[in-house]
Order: sequence, then C-alpha cells, then structure tokens
Amino acid sequence: MIQDLKIGIIGSDVRQSIVARELASAGATVYGYAVTEEEGINICSSVKKCTSLSDIIILALPYSADSRYINCPDSEIKITDFFNSIAEGKLVLAGKTDEYARRLCNERNIKLTDYFEYEELTLLNAVPTCEGALELAMRELDITIFDSKSLVLGYGRIGKILANHLAMLGSDVTVSARKSRDRTLAVINGHNSCDISEIQKRISQFDVVFNTIPSLIFNRELLEKTPNNTLIIDLASRPGGVDMNTAKAMGKRVIWALSLPGKVAPVSAGKIIFSTIMKILEEEGFL
Amino acid sequence: MIQDLKIGIIGSDVRQSIVARELASAGATVYGYAVTEEEGINICSSVKKCTSLSDIIILALPYSADSRYINCPDSEIKITDFFNSIAEGKLVLAGKTDEYARRLCNERNIKLTDYFEYEELTLLNAVPTCEGALELAMRELDITIFDSKSLVLGYGRIGKILANHLAMLGSDVTVSARKSRDRTLAVINGHNSCDISEIQKRISQFDVVFNTIPSLIFNRELLEKTPNNTLIIDLASRPGGVDMNTAKAMGKRVIWALSLPGKVAPVSAGKIIFSTIMKILEEEGFL
Amino acid sequence: MIQDLKIGIIGSDVRQSIVARELASAGATVYGYAVTEEEGINICSSVKKCTSLSDIIILALPYSADSRYINCPDSEIKITDFFNSIAEGKLVLAGKTDEYARRLCNERNIKLTDYFEYEELTLLNAVPTCEGALELAMRELDITIFDSKSLVLGYGRIGKILANHLAMLGSDVTVSARKSRDRTLAVINGHNSCDISEIQKRISQFDVVFNTIPSLIFNRELLEKTPNNTLIIDLASRPGGVDMNTAKAMGKRVIWALSLPGKVAPVSAGKIIFSTIMKILEEEGFL
Amino acid sequence: MIQDLKIGIIGSDVRQSIVARELASAGATVYGYAVTEEEGINICSSVKKCTSLSDIIILALPYSADSRYINCPDSEIKITDFFNSIAEGKLVLAGKTDEYARRLCNERNIKLTDYFEYEELTLLNAVPTCEGALELAMRELDITIFDSKSLVLGYGRIGKILANHLAMLGSDVTVSARKSRDRTLAVINGHNSCDISEIQKRISQFDVVFNTIPSLIFNRELLEKTPNNTLIIDLASRPGGVDMNTAKAMGKRVIWALSLPGKVAPVSAGKIIFSTIMKILEEEGFL
Repeated sequence: MIQDLKIGIIGSDVRQSIVARELASAGATVYGYAVTEEEGINICSSVKKCTSLSDIIILALPYSADSRYINCPDSEIKITDFFNSIAEGKLVLAGKTDEYARRLCNERNIKLTDYFEYEELTLLNAVPTCEGALELAMRELDITIFDSKSLVLGYGRIGKILANHLAMLGSDVTVSARKSRDRTLAVINGHNSCDISEIQKRISQFDVVFNTIPSLIFNRELLEKTPNNTLIIDLASRPGGVDMNTAKAMGKRVIWALSLPGKVAPVSAGKIIFSTIMKILEEEGFL
Repeated sequence: MIQDLKIGIIGSDVRQSIVARELASAGATVYGYAVTEEEGINICSSVKKCTSLSDIIILALPYSADSRYINCPDSEIKITDFFNSIAEGKLVLAGKTDEYARRLCNERNIKLTDYFEYEELTLLNAVPTCEGALELAMRELDITIFDSKSLVLGYGRIGKILANHLAMLGSDVTVSARKSRDRTLAVINGHNSCDISEIQKRISQFDVVFNTIPSLIFNRELLEKTPNNTLIIDLASRPGGVDMNTAKAMGKRVIWALSLPGKVAPVSAGKIIFSTIMKILEEEGFL
Repeated sequence: MIQDLKIGIIGSDVRQSIVARELASAGATVYGYAVTEEEGINICSSVKKCTSLSDIIILALPYSADSRYINCPDSEIKITDFFNSIAEGKLVLAGKTDEYARRLCNERNIKLTDYFEYEELTLLNAVPTCEGALELAMRELDITIFDSKSLVLGYGRIGKILANHLAMLGSDVTVSARKSRDRTLAVINGHNSCDISEIQKRISQFDVVFNTIPSLIFNRELLEKTPNNTLIIDLASRPGGVDMNTAKAMGKRVIWALSLPGKVAPVSAGKIIFSTIMKILEEEGFL
Repeated sequence: MIQDLKIGIIGSDVRQSIVARELASAGATVYGYAVTEEEGINICSSVKKCTSLSDIIILALPYSADSRYINCPDSEIKITDFFNSIAEGKLVLAGKTDEYARRLCNERNIKLTDYFEYEELTLLNAVPTCEGALELAMRELDITIFDSKSLVLGYGRIGKILANHLAMLGSDVTVSARKSRDRTLAVINGHNSCDISEIQKRISQFDVVFNTIPSLIFNRELLEKTPNNTLIIDLASRPGGVDMNTAKAMGKRVIWALSLPGKVAPVSAGKIIFSTIMKILEEEGFL
C-alpha cells in the first residue's frame, strides 16, 4: 500500500516537484528537500533530515551533473557524503547513475535502482522528445512543416512517432533505416523509405533532417553533400550522429537536441518519472 | 503570357524577396528594389526606377506600417509621393490597403488591388497561422500537447485546421462555436463540442485555449473563471477576443498572436502571396 | 419537458425502432406501432390507436415509398387515410415529404415537419454515408485502399470526410471541384486537387472514383475515357452524376449508392434521426 | 540480372497471375501454367513443360490445399509427381510448405524456399488483413465505426495498424496486451489500454472485438461475459483465439477471418508476393 510508504524527494527542477506532488496525492508520506511547497509535502530543512525520515529516496535525472556532487540546486553535497548518510537497506531511485554510484551503494548495502533505464520511461519520453523536435523545427525553419520535405533517420520508437507527427502536419516524409524490416514498416505507415546507403544521393532534397541513430551518420562526406540551408536536428544521445566540429566549420545548420523532455515539457516529464517510479515500486513489491 | 509582364517588387522582408524570386522563375521580367539579389532579378537603384520600368508594381503586406510611409526598410517614401510617381493605368498590388491609398489611386487613375482580401491568401495562410499557434503553445506550455486538454473557440478555416492538428498530436480537443452547424461538424470530425454559453462553466478544465473568434469573448467575467495557469492564445484579428488590459491586470497568460505567417514561416508566406498574385493576374487577364 | 410528451412512432425498419427506444429512454411517453417491443414502449394494436394517443407522430424516412401508402411494413394505409385520421393541431414529423403530404396536412390543419431537411441530419448522415462508400470500395476493389489512387468529385460535407478517410487509410487522393476555394481547401487538407475540366485527361489514372456532385459529370465523353476497370461509386442523389444507361452499355463498373446510412448502419442512422428530432422539438418549444 | 532469369509460375488464383505479370514486366522470361494470358507471358500447355523450361518455379500460396495435390485449379497433380518432375538444382519458391515438401525436395536436391515465411510478406500482408477486418466489421455491424467502442487484442504488426485505422475513423479504441511495453505503446499512440486480465470485467462495453493473439483468449468464461450483440472478429491463425464450438452454441457473433489478403485484395496480395520473391531472388544472388 502506497499509504505505508515514506518517500523522500531531493529536488532539482520542476520534474522532482511534480514527482513529489503526484506521490503525495497518490497517498504516500512525502518528505521533500528543494521541491515546491505544496499541501501534502513535508518540506525538510536539510537533505539529511529528508533522507533519514524516508525509506525510499528519489534523486533527480540525472542524479549528478558532474559525477562529484548530487544534482540539487540549493547546496553542495558530495556524492560520497550523500550515500554515506543513507542508512543500510534503504532504496534509492535515481536517474542516469554511473559505476561510481553503484559501487558506493553496493559497499553501503543500499539498494540503487536507475529509473532512467526502465523501458516505461524510455517509451513515454518519446512523446515529449518528438514534440520538442517538432517545436525546434518549427522555430528554426522559415517554411511550414506542411509541404516541407523531411527525412527521419532511424525508425525506432522516436522515429516512428516523429515521422507520424510530421506526416499528420502535411510534410512529405522519407524514413531511412538500415534494416529492411524498418523500411517496410515505414512504407506500411504511409511514408517514403530509403536505404541509409542512398542518403548521400538524396540529402539535397530535404528541408529538414531528424537523426535518431546513435552512430556517426553525418560524417564529412555526407555533410559536404548537405545544403547549408538544410536543418539537421540530431536527437541521438552521445556521441550523437553528426560530426559537430566539421559541421560547424562548414557552416551547416545543426542542432544537437539532448534531453528534450525536461526542457520542453517539464511537467509532463515529471509525470513520466512518477509513473515509472510507480511501476518500479510495484515490481519491487511495495505496492 | 507571364513572359510579357514587367513586374516591379518593392521589398520589405523575406516574403517580398520570395515573391520576386518566384515571379522571375515563372518567367516574368522582374525589377526589384530592396529585395535579395538573385539571378533573374534586376535590382534597381531607386524605387522610382523600379516602378517606372514596370507595368505591375507589388507592394508589401502591409503596404504601410503607419499610414504615412510605404513599407520599405531602406528609405522613407511617403505614400502620397509614391503614388504620385506612378504613371496612370498601371496596376498596383498591395496588402492591407486603406481608404487613403484607394483614394490616391482613384485620383491618379491607378488600378489598385489588395491581395490580402483574396480568399486564396486567407485560406492558404491558415496553415502557417495554425503551425505558428502550435509552436507558441509548445513553447509556452510546460506540458506536452499529447494528453493536454485544449479548447478551440470558433470553427472556421483556422479553427478546423488547428483542432485537427491538436487532435493528431494527441490533445483532447473541445470546439466551441455559436452555430449549431459548426458544433455538429466538430463532432463529426472527432472533437468534443460545446456551446459558447457553456464556456464559463468549463473553462477551468483546459490547459490551453485558442481563440479564433473576432469579438470580445474573454471579458472580465470569463477571465475571472479562467485559471492563471491556462494559456490563452488569441488568433483573432483586431480588436481580438480578449480584454487585454483586464487580463494582464489579473495576471492571466495571454498571447495575442497576430500576423503569424510572416513571422513563423516567411518563405512559405511569400510563396502564398506569390500564388495569390498569380491568381489575380489570371483573373485580370494578364496570363 | 420531454416527460410531458406523448409521442407515437409508426415503424418501418430498425431506424424507427431505435427512435422509439431513444425517446423512451429520454423520458417521453412512447406509443409504437410496428416497432420492436421494448421496455418503456407502449405497443399499439393499430396505427389509429397509436396516433390518437399521441400529440406528436413520427413517420419513417421516407414517409412513403410510393407516394400512395404510408411506409409501414405491416399494413396498407393510404396516405390520405392516414392524415385524415389525425386530429387537428397535432405535429407530424416525417422524412422526405412531398407536395401531396404537405397539402393534405395544410387542409387538415396538421403541422408537418420534414426532419430530412434539417441540416443536423444531413451533416450527421455524412458519416455513415462515407463509411458505406468506403465499405463498397473495399468490397468491390481487388486492391487495397492503401496505395490506391482515388478521385473524389466534389468537396462538400461528404467529399471532405471521404477524402480524409481515404487518405488516412493510405490512398493517394485527388479532389476535383469546380470552385477554386474548394480546391484550395483540399490542398490545405493534404490532398491533390484538379479542376473539373481536367478530369477527362486524368481519369485513366484512378482506381476508384467517388462522385458527390449532383449533376451529370460522367457523360458519354467522360465514360469513354474511363477504364473499364475503374470503379465509380456515385453518391449523388437523383438524378445522380453518371449516365447509367450508357455506362452499363459500355461495361463500366458503376455503383449508384443511395440512402447508405439506413442500409449500412441502421442503428446509427436511427440515432441520427432521434437527435434531429430532439433538435426540432427543442426549436419548436417542446423541450 | 532479372533479364537472365527463366521463371515458371503455376497458377492458382489471381495472385499467381499478378506475380507472372509483374515478373514479366520486370524483364524476366516467364513461363506460365494456369495463369491469365498476357503480353510477355509464355503460356505452357502443361505443368511439366512450364517447369522444364524454367530455372526457378513459383508455386501458389498455399502450395497445396490438402497436402496431397499441388494447388492448381486445372488439373490433379500429386505433390510427389510434381517434385519428381523437377530437375536437380532448380529453385522452387512456394507458400506454406510442410515437412513433406521439404523432405521431397531434399531427397531430390531441389532448393525449396517458402516465401510465406519471409518477414517482408508478413509485414506487407498486414495492410490487406487490416482492411479486410475493417470491411468485415463495417459489413456486420449495424452501427458506424465512428463513435463505436472497439477492442483490439494484441499489439503486434496487425494490432498496431488496425487500432490506428479504427481510431482514424473515429472509433474509441482500447488495446489489450499482455506486455506492459505494448500497452504503453498503445497509450503513446493515442489509444486506451488494458491488461488482458481486465478483459472479463470490461468486455461488455465493446461493440466489436478484433483478436490478433494466437492463443485461446475467448474461452467459455470470457464468452459468458460477452454480450450476444458484440461482434468478435478473430484474425489469429490456427488454432485461433476463440473456442468456436462453445461460441456458436452460445449464439455469439464470431467471424474467423483467415487468409484475408488473397480474399479481399487479391491483386495487392499478388504484388506483395511478387515483391517478396524479388527480395528472395536478390538475397539468393539472382539479381
């Protein structure tokens, strides 16, 4: 029962405040540090107070911005100090954890779960990511999406939604993917398709390119064939799909759009984290 | 035949440059002032040179920003002086003309046609207007369009496209219109509908409201029922649908979004003006 | 108040039974003849009993199939006899009334309202009409709608929905309309467009044609250019848009699809009649 | 090069004729038996002549309807006799082959490839399958898809397209799937979702159910909760998802819709087989 749970949330941005609010209204006893004051949330005067009162502690996404300090705007808390202050046996839920955090928790017998690695979050985040990409394209292009020619590289969860959004707004969409299966799916869904190997020949036709493939697609050779006017929005996580230095030197229009959900729709992104955490709590037997 | 036409374009912004380019590539002899230099466009050193060489002269949208000077960034040309310099019998195409311009042209026996009043332009402009409204909503909201609750006031050409765009992106859309016919059409197109008289009761449910009705809908009474968090995007032309002073005083979130096409998609907006001008030239027997 | 109304329904098909059921569950006192027995419906042993007990009488759509007898499966009641048996001052709601019925009611001081002429019904009927047309096309074609080339003639309420349905299922849709405004709207909605005058040249490209224009489009000349394999579905009411005799003689594939709502979705069609009747009762001050 | 290939097609229905036509117009030398006569197709007087002249032989889908005779309308050719008549080393492409055919080919050193097992065909067939299911629903239901409540069981390639089609036509769609991932995907795509375990409680709400899960979902228990009026369309291959005997005994409305592509859109189905065969020929190094 969620009513039995004491959950501490260490705030970072809007998303953590939303997580706190949603947990409180779901019935949990919520202790918050650096989150928005609201009915049902017990604001704590220190991180230590917050964690000591709670059985489950939720850190931000990412849990640390620099691998030294906990991601928390109001104070400087070293990662080591933070985990040292947590009693054994407690559960910490955190985003984008690293080897360092995992080792510390292991030594201290703290249970650490990375909610960023849950498929639920990955899937649900596709929606704000695609809307963010669309917003960027609308802002940067001096033409409408309607009647534009767009290329979507990759046809996974983001490529599928994005291609569909673009088509619904009237863009002439081409999907490029390595796998024959993905190209066939794109055709079934009403898009044009082309093999990755054909991009070089066709790149000059497109007004805007969205890359979702996390490997170097836009190398010097392809960039040379890309018109300066073509907008490239790279949605692939590190190392990204564009040789950025070369692209900039050549004067290409590239936007590397990382972590869009928290930026373009922090409230929705917070709710997605909340719903992922609920799923984890369920799986872990807390609910 | 377009090849027989000598057309002068007085530049203002990107749109006029696009009109010049498209006319040139359609085959017209184009004289341009304050437009981007490009192959096929004869750049003139003065407005007078440009108009004297041309049989048809195209002014910007709007033709004047202040009812005193011609809308042209590079020089100060009084409206009177401009029309005095045009030979009798020539055709001037201009946007948002007023009584003053019409009188001057009438006296001087100049034919004046306002392309902004053509249905072709009004209809085609609905697309960039809706994309601009969508972009604004995406930028301002801290939630995604997906899963949002949106209200579209009015179900004319803009309301129809906008409601459809929002629904395609996953918003739960309600259309409010005075006419029973429009509400029925909205239902047929898959939206919720409500009578304008019910808005007061329901306004607190919506995350975002798009107004397309050009009369005072958001008066003090309705604004009082509108949550501070609800975003109002007013797309209605002057005087708009929101009592702005009261709304601001109350701390409501209102954006009065006028003339979106030229702002959000100037190249598409330019092509729309071009295609309207072609239609006018056809109707007037030039093509 | 609907609770105060005594309404008699003379059955014809499923639709009238649905009207009876919906009126009963809305709270009216319902007398039915030749409608399905159901809770809340008082089944009468004769038409006369049914009409004498009721203040408002609802006849079928059409009210008569042959202009001599009332449309009612179970007995032969002449139109004259029917109206003669109705007391003065009562309201009769009927579908597709004619001069004859109007004259009889006028003489007898009976109020006659034709619900088939209400825009509400016309608009709502567009949905089952379009689904019926789609079903016909799916049944008759040996190809899928997906990837087919379809032509929609006319862009009114039916043309708009049908073109949209076809596009959503992956057809490459062209809309042909006389009015420039309609062709522009079709383009804005993502379809191809062509002037009616161009059909002759282009007709051979289409797998299926849906006509919604109530005037002779497919004359001998156009039929001669139409491939025998092309399916023509004529949705236009009498006299229809196809020269049927010539088309048949030439071996063309034409389906004249009239009155689809009652045939393909009688329950939905009945609900549409019900909702139109409610609107009429409201306008007439009964509700 | 396709021009170098000699391909024999043993006809069964429209699909094989389409395969023959497409191969011929792609440039292959085509020998046909029991296929439609057309330019570029060399019609053979016997199966033996057809196979002896060809290097590659294409049998129908399924290659045999009874596991004894080759699927070919015009003559009775035993499977053994057929394969015995084929010279060693030739390639036979056939649909829905069985252990028997594979063993015979193995013994005779004939290369046998089952095109029905190719993902290309499976994916592309999803389109005519979904359109066929939609057509069935439209034909059987006395309501429109618009405003109906539909349940799609399973969210694989068919469930995804079908749910989307239904939603586009205005149905209120619920997707039920075992995997949490699939339910989340359905939500992202704008549908309602529910766990398979909840169906019993909710089944009475739906007008129509489409099953795509190939295991017994509609057992006696679930059938007892299913209204007699609810239409069940079972798209799952053998053994299907419905206990048919029990369903019939209970008077439920169930349609077991197998092999829809060849039935509802044989020309499209033929083109899909053709495009799969081209992919196989490419992979096998023939093109």
